[in-house]
Amino acid sequence: MADHPRILIDGRAIAQVDAMDRGLSYGDGVFRTLRIADAHPRWWDEHLAKLAEDCARLALDCPDRATLGQDIAKLQPLPAWGALRITVTRGLGPRGYRVPHPQHCMRILACWPTPLDTVPGRGLTLRVCDLRLGRQPALAGVKHLNRLENVLARAEWDDPHIDEGVLLDQDGSVVSGIMGNLFIWRDACLLTPRLNACGVAGVARARLMRLAREAGMRVEAADFDLATLLAADEVMLTNSLTGLRRVARLGDRVWPEPCISPRLVGLLNA
Amino acid sequence: MADHPRILIDGRAIAQVDAMDRGLSYGDGVFRTLRIADAHPRWWDEHLAKLAEDCARLALDCPDRATLGQDIAKLQPLPAWGALRITVTRGLGPRGYRVPHPQHCMRILACWPTPLDTVPGRGLTLRVCDLRLGRQPALAGVKHLNRLENVLARAEWDDPHIDEGVLLDQDGSVVSGIMGNLFIWRDACLLTPRLNACGVAGVARARLMRLAREAGMRVEAADFDLATLLAADEVMLTNSLTGLRRVARLGDRVWPEPCISPRLVGLLNA
Repeated sequence: MADHPRILIDGRAIAQVDAMDRGLSYGDGVFRTLRIADAHPRWWDEHLAKLAEDCARLALDCPDRATLGQDIAKLQPLPAWGALRITVTRGLGPRGYRVPHPQHCMRILACWPTPLDTVPGRGLTLRVCDLRLGRQPALAGVKHLNRLENVLARAEWDDPHIDEGVLLDQDGSVVSGIMGNLFIWRDACLLTPRLNACGVAGVARARLMRLAREAGMRVEAADFDLATLLAADEVMLTNSLTGLRRVARLGDRVWPEPCISPRLVGLLNA
Repeated sequence: MADHPRILIDGRAIAQVDAMDRGLSYGDGVFRTLRIADAHPRWWDEHLAKLAEDCARLALDCPDRATLGQDIAKLQPLPAWGALRITVTRGLGPRGYRVPHPQHCMRILACWPTPLDTVPGRGLTLRVCDLRLGRQPALAGVKHLNRLENVLARAEWDDPHIDEGVLLDQDGSVVSGIMGNLFIWRDACLLTPRLNACGVAGVARARLMRLAREAGMRVEAADFDLATLLAADEVMLTNSLTGLRRVARLGDRVWPEPCISPRLVGLLNA
């Protein structure tokens, strides 16, 4: 591939993994996707904390801060503006689902330059996905490698004018976008889905919730349905790569002007 | 690994895959595990049909019969008694969940010798797993690479006397074992979970249902709960590696003697 990223596996500059790795066999692992800005991984501490939290949820041995710091040093120079994916898998072991003891977890760091965001102020156009997420509290919130639901949801449209899909769960509750978390602004309150049954609790989401609370705003994580989303004063998506972006359109519903999003962008990127 | 299998990737005798393969990044792929008996892959036609069916469910390009036949020829001599795993992933593509067009699917064949089953007549000891499967009709029945639920369920116990776990879904319906499909014998009817919301519809299951019907037995796929399973005259598990095995114990419930299972073993292995 022309744009194949630079890759480091367990600290070595190789780009191939064992075909029997449990990450491939079962999706037995987790990952993070970070923004590289000014040649530094953005929100590094928060991403390391989330990586450790997700590893703990799956009883994966998480690489420590010093090890990941050494990996980043080996990847220098980082692109000025780019993306970094950190993947941790359960590595090799005897065949079968049973978790090996001891584990020999594998870490993959992959980084690549990305174009600077164009027209960041433009609002996003969304669709509601037909696919409804399965409810699985044991995996809810974790950014694990089992992402077929996201792949199937993204395969629902080809229209380049549609930027993202809204995912509901089997009960009709709003969960997230396919690639990011979802916030609505309503009655002067910032509301985001609870994610206790599905979805990924992203770093940008947690960071925005914390900073908005510190700024004195009302912030809640709660279940709500599509009608509540459509009635919102503003709808926004967050992820670690693109930060916060407002939604301009969802089907026939149009939000012509930003409301609270400029202030939230300022908070998130402070 | 001392017992690393012999591996063929896209027809080449290599054992490494690209770290950016979508099979690893997202679990974007499917697999089959076959029994090798007398140095031949058992139930080959049924496995190829199921592989094609599962690929179609995910819009994956499935390798054709001739290609897989050539792969098997390259793996000769096969072990007299062993296992063969066939994995198909969506290969490489631009980053992100979006499915690449055209696809460059990757196929992995891995085979290894296994010990002959010992005491095949011994009944299995089961436990009921705490983990409840998420209901996801879009993936139900497909043997895809998103198998974290199985990993988490298998991690619930260490007791070597427990052979398998019974999986229920979020609604309390019985789905399957962790490694195989489940059948009960009740009122002279062979009953197996429907699998319209979760689980894997295995080749041994389909084969047993077909052959039992051809032998004049009543066979049904339906939803039932744990109480129905416990009240059954006999409980059995099937998978392609071990065939059909009867359950001797689940918690306090003991089935001391086989009932219909010897006849079903005969049918399945005919």
